Amino acid sequence: MNIQAVIMAGGSGTRFWPLSRTRRPKQFLDIVSSLSMVEETVTRLAPLVAPKDILTIANAGQTAGLRRLLKGLPRGNFLVEPLARNTAPSLVLATAHVYLRDPKAVVAALAADHLIRDPGRFRRVLEAGARVAAKGEAIVTFGVPPTFPSTGYGYIHFRESGAVKAGGKAFHPVLEFKEKPDRARAEKFLADGRYYWNSGMFLWRADTFAGKLERFAPEFFPFWERILDALRKKNNRELARIFREIPALSIDYALMEKAEGVLVVKGDFGWSDVGAWSSLFDVWPADAAGNAAKGKIIALDSKGCLVHSPKKLTALIGVEDLIVVDTGDALLVCRRDLDQKVKDVVEILKREKSGHL
Amino acid sequence: MNIQAVIMAGGSGTRFWPLSRTRRPKQFLDIVSSLSMVEETVTRLAPLVAPKDILTIANAGQTAGLRRLLKGLPRGNFLVEPLARNTAPSLVLATAHVYLRDPKAVVAALAADHLIRDPGRFRRVLEAGARVAAKGEAIVTFGVPPTFPSTGYGYIHFRESGAVKAGGKAFHPVLEFKEKPDRARAEKFLADGRYYWNSGMFLWRADTFAGKLERFAPEFFPFWERILDALRKKNNRELARIFREIPALSIDYALMEKAEGVLVVKGDFGWSDVGAWSSLFDVWPADAAGNAAKGKIIALDSKGCLVHSPKKLTALIGVEDLIVVDTGDALLVCRRDLDQKVKDVVEILKREKSGHL
Repeated sequence: MNIQAVIMAGGSGTRFWPLSRTRRPKQFLDIVSSLSMVEETVTRLAPLVAPKDILTIANAGQTAGLRRLLKGLPRGNFLVEPLARNTAPSLVLATAHVYLRDPKAVVAALAADHLIRDPGRFRRVLEAGARVAAKGEAIVTFGVPPTFPSTGYGYIHFRESGAVKAGGKAFHPVLEFKEKPDRARAEKFLADGRYYWNSGMFLWRADTFAGKLERFAPEFFPFWERILDALRKKNNRELARIFREIPALSIDYALMEKAEGVLVVKGDFGWSDVGAWSSLFDVWPADAAGNAAKGKIIALDSKGCLVHSPKKLTALIGVEDLIVVDTGDALLVCRRDLDQKVKDVVEILKREKSGHL
Repeated sequence: MNIQAVIMAGGSGTRFWPLSRTRRPKQFLDIVSSLSMVEETVTRLAPLVAPKDILTIANAGQTAGLRRLLKGLPRGNFLVEPLARNTAPSLVLATAHVYLRDPKAVVAALAADHLIRDPGRFRRVLEAGARVAAKGEAIVTFGVPPTFPSTGYGYIHFRESGAVKAGGKAFHPVLEFKEKPDRARAEKFLADGRYYWNSGMFLWRADTFAGKLERFAPEFFPFWERILDALRKKNNRELARIFREIPALSIDYALMEKAEGVLVVKGDFGWSDVGAWSSLFDVWPADAAGNAAKGKIIALDSKGCLVHSPKKLTALIGVEDLIVVDTGDALLVCRRDLDQKVKDVVEILKREKSGHL
């Protein structure tokens, strides 16, 4: 079985401002360990997938950074998307690239900036899923058992019956992909038990993907064929033209929500998309008062604070539930439950054409 | 009338940590304006006292810094105390120095790290007080009309009757110097109306000071004579020996509380000793939400914060009543009403022999 891991590393989020910047998005940050998140992603795959079979896809600027971090990967494995056009175009390009290597290879489409607390279990699920995908019929997706009624994730509704078994795991037929629900629906999904969070990770055989596109996303299929052709001819100019024309859609919207023959496996490997600063409260070890820090802190009468200030001493006096992030040129002090507003600061900086982005 | 201003610049406070450090105490900080506090002190005197008549007194390490800041003062005007031994020894030494220049000169003993919002009025009070002191009988002290029942200042109890008039000001006989009172007594002092805060600033003729010492602080008088002798002979070794022996007392305790013939004049010139970070709320201009900053800030849903972060952008989200101070190697985030606890952080750093002091 030939697994080709495609790490989608083109994200450009700024929810971790001031640490994340336009030129240094989350996947480049060492916020979950001493390694950057994309290095963690590769390290996690290493026992199962050889470096020659690990590819990244990102824009040209990000690719330079990826090459510096991921020195063990062959130079040709850093795929460059001519334009950032959401995940569907990226994955069409990456899968076409794999298809030309081996049409029967299984693509594992993975995010570069997710946390997985149990990498061993992750690899066992991935391997079992690849066996299922390798049959050439289904697309396999990883569903995360919800732990609270999140309105921030999409959900996957599956059927209990008719599951395919492989490697001790059950692969349930997907009934429907649900976009981010409101609170009431999220509560319902959680209570129902037949809904997983959509982790955004998928497995498909390259030729199966082509077939699903042709049948369920016919507006994308001509782009698939044109991309294959451009890759064969190494015609980068044509590739850039295609990327200007291809619809900028997510793979969920472009294909998953429409496709038949999608299976979901339980991704109970401690997944988190680490969506904002406060999510790190679940990741960083905290002291007895619930303060978690990267960098030395002195906390007096203070609790529930997250401090990222690795280069200096931080003293907290009488403060609670704060997020404090210090970088060379910017400092954030944010109430713990308002970290979604970091994007409002980023918007202000954009309007001001600030150098702090 | 020969006024000799003596600026006591030997303070070593760390209440403005992390900005103030052992080697850079408050008088060296530009927290009240774009100048350091000691430069402000000299600038405030300039229209009344020529640079040749302005002296500083501090330890050797601080004197190097003072020379860099106060380039307009003659080199010989930077008096060095061999040891930091509180204000009485400093002022005995400085007054002896002035005495050898001119025994009838009026010493204006001033702090290097106080804020005076109305320097014009300050000079008028100082000049009137110097005229009274120049008569050679009284010591004149500046009393600040209390605006709240502070337990952090000493008080001066004076008599309404028997005031001496000069320059349109009344100089009232001092009845008693009161040390920092408890809350109940502070309330009483405030209600009484015949109590001023002790600003720690004084005027005396050099020979009058010697006479008061001889009569009211006889244990200090032999040191006065030994210091005079050592200064005449330029015997620094003897001066160092005297400073090891002289009692390390404040001038209030050593002389003022015991002396007769002390007058107090109302110091209604916007005085503040700028005792801690929160006192700067009264000094720095604030925005509509009550946020005051040195450095650029973006404040979302935030109010009542004081930010000293001149070298970087600071974003505040959903926070209230915080003091945020960023320096090259340390960061403080402190609840506004708990800034007295900064000294607890400093104590911890001392115990740890930290480099952040």
